[in-house]
Amino acid sequence: MQYCEMSKEELLKLKEELDARYTEAKSKGLKLDMSRGKPSAKQLNVTMEMLDVLNSSSDLKAEDGTDCRNYGLVDGIPEAKKLMADMMGTTPEHVIVYGNASLSIMYDQVSRAYTHGLLGSTPWVKLDKVKFLCPVPGYDRHFAITERFGIEMINIPMTENGPDMDMVEQYVNNDESVKGIWCVPKYSNPQGYTYSDETVKRFAALKPAAKDFRIFWDNAYVVHHLYEDKQDEILDIISECEKAGNPDMVFEFASTSKVSFPGSGIAALAASADNIAEIKKQLTIQTIGHDKINQLRHVRFFKNVEGIRAHMMRHAEQMRPKFEATLEVLESELTGLGIGTWSEPRGGYFISFDALEGCAKAIVEKCKEAGVTLTNAGATFPYGKDPKDSNIRIAPSFPTPEEMKQASDLFVLCVKIVSIEKILETK
Amino acid sequence: MQYCEMSKEELLKLKEELDARYTEAKSKGLKLDMSRGKPSAKQLNVTMEMLDVLNSSSDLKAEDGTDCRNYGLVDGIPEAKKLMADMMGTTPEHVIVYGNASLSIMYDQVSRAYTHGLLGSTPWVKLDKVKFLCPVPGYDRHFAITERFGIEMINIPMTENGPDMDMVEQYVNNDESVKGIWCVPKYSNPQGYTYSDETVKRFAALKPAAKDFRIFWDNAYVVHHLYEDKQDEILDIISECEKAGNPDMVFEFASTSKVSFPGSGIAALAASADNIAEIKKQLTIQTIGHDKINQLRHVRFFKNVEGIRAHMMRHAEQMRPKFEATLEVLESELTGLGIGTWSEPRGGYFISFDALEGCAKAIVEKCKEAGVTLTNAGATFPYGKDPKDSNIRIAPSFPTPEEMKQASDLFVLCVKIVSIEKILETK
Repeated sequence: MQYCEMSKEELLKLKEELDARYTEAKSKGLKLDMSRGKPSAKQLNVTMEMLDVLNSSSDLKAEDGTDCRNYGLVDGIPEAKKLMADMMGTTPEHVIVYGNASLSIMYDQVSRAYTHGLLGSTPWVKLDKVKFLCPVPGYDRHFAITERFGIEMINIPMTENGPDMDMVEQYVNNDESVKGIWCVPKYSNPQGYTYSDETVKRFAALKPAAKDFRIFWDNAYVVHHLYEDKQDEILDIISECEKAGNPDMVFEFASTSKVSFPGSGIAALAASADNIAEIKKQLTIQTIGHDKINQLRHVRFFKNVEGIRAHMMRHAEQMRPKFEATLEVLESELTGLGIGTWSEPRGGYFISFDALEGCAKAIVEKCKEAGVTLTNAGATFPYGKDPKDSNIRIAPSFPTPEEMKQASDLFVLCVKIVSIEKILETK
Repeated sequence: MQYCEMSKEELLKLKEELDARYTEAKSKGLKLDMSRGKPSAKQLNVTMEMLDVLNSSSDLKAEDGTDCRNYGLVDGIPEAKKLMADMMGTTPEHVIVYGNASLSIMYDQVSRAYTHGLLGSTPWVKLDKVKFLCPVPGYDRHFAITERFGIEMINIPMTENGPDMDMVEQYVNNDESVKGIWCVPKYSNPQGYTYSDETVKRFAALKPAAKDFRIFWDNAYVVHHLYEDKQDEILDIISECEKAGNPDMVFEFASTSKVSFPGSGIAALAASADNIAEIKKQLTIQTIGHDKINQLRHVRFFKNVEGIRAHMMRHAEQMRPKFEATLEVLESELTGLGIGTWSEPRGGYFISFDALEGCAKAIVEKCKEAGVTLTNAGATFPYGKDPKDSNIRIAPSFPTPEEMKQASDLFVLCVKIVSIEKILETK
């Protein structure tokens, strides 16, 4: 029976039982963290052998003869370009390989657009108003970058097929101050949705009012499947944009943070020839080069994209039970109660939960009181403000499956209690 | 006998001999590169064992328990902070450890000052005029960063004790638009001069008209001695600025690019507590962290600063013969001719040569024609413009000592011919 259909008395009685269970749960002194999309130590163990592929007797020459130990190749070694291109589903000439962290590449692109403009356009700092579209719920670190540069962020609702493209077209094609959109197109953060082919094609076919409009295509979970058999696929945005006559409109990002090591991966950008040429020009001013030995280490370890795919299945083996433990609890405890909906992703690092309006903060708070840390409510929206106070991001990667079951049990208990309190306000 | 005291006839006769020797040299088809401060492959071999210190059985926990494989510690692992602090002569609480390339840290500091201002000051982009002082000759990549941000660069003559401090004080203490100065305080690029204690103290005691004036103290060659016995020392600018009541006035930079591997080192910034706090705030927006496994690799390999010092002597063994081969040729061939002066550094990567006014470009060109590449004349000055067309940077690190002798032989030959041509113009 849906909670909203229950009488005040029934709800009060139920709440009494749930409160007792909450008090009991609290007394257990849990200390669990579902807040961050961070692999567990056990999961990181699957990559340890990467540290064996290079040693003092290794030949550290890249395939073009470059000594990876020395200066040079600001855009990365050829074989690392190829590996990252294959991973992203594009071709090496579109790719620059960086150091650890794709976030800093994204920051750089925004920063450069702000200070110097893109392909000859006016630097954003000189404009009265710069806006970015932000599909929501989304990734807080994206929003932090645009907020840092005083860029106005506009919420775009997400659907299972990607952002609301009617709204995206409306803004992009008519408002010259709209300069970008943040996208996590595959296994989106936090919902785990993958943009449909139609969505990608509509993106590629945008007719931006601003000629320096860019799609910030953060393909963070491009190979991060949970299942061997059920895998999402996504069209290559670079070639779609080319075909649609908009080659320069997209910056694509990816990294091996959740493939090899978050603390020691390699990251890459993919873009059109003109964009790449401009970025390389900037890079020669900005750095003497990224870590080429680590690039080589990655190539020698994975060998090719098939190696990455096989490796990702070892990650999936660790991740899947955690997702399943969480989803099982949500399903068995909340189905039919009308107090929440959630995504059931086939990849990525998160489950997105939508509570009744006005309940997310209270649920997160209540979980925290009993020792279970969730991502702050609101974090999945620009400025940390979820207008409905409804979305909660669940990150199952760090705890063990058993801990995820415990944490989820507590979570659904808190969802129930807070929802009853909310419903009671109107009875 | 000095060339300028020779008669026209004597000079013409001499030139004829030298031209013949040049033609002969040219026919040898030399292909030597003295243009870049780049270690040779043989020199890089001394660091190969660094690749053995971490493998799949290693404990990858930092001393504070941080799993270096995972996210976290945007400012670096504690033991890497300590190592880099000891190398720079400061203390770990002043230090942030980054990835490969200190140049990108410098770029970041300028970029952040430009877009967001420093410690509450007006962002430089909002000012009509921003100026940097540039001790000359200096490092072209410094100048490229400031040029990129439209910052006006002012030449400050170098002396053997550092920049002309009367001039520095005059500018910094009176002109609010002077926001920075580029310094390579130890074994300067290209002269190899080390700032005297008095110079450092005068720097620390500056009374800048601009409260956001910063000394960009690129301590690139802090441990890069050529000799075991003859070593320059430099005062710690961080504590000197503290003592002088100017704690926030300096950003210090260093890296292991020429200690471990240029293609895979670690870099660091040192600054006051307030500066560090502000930079860390920015870093949490800009990156998920730098490569902590490589930081750990460096610490486990070098162990401590004594390990670095011992390692640098292995580099010195390779570098010294190349410097000595070059200096011997300069000395035996050019002493007393009055057509050039040069520095005799005890460390660093360069020898600086000052030709007769108006001769540098022609000398570099003439060397190139015969197969010896030098750094472009002018590169050691802002905007690539040496007002006297006199300075030439010699980088002896990449060729072998024998090749450096060959290259230097050709170099002095070209110096002689071009100088005679110059002197003849006035006879």
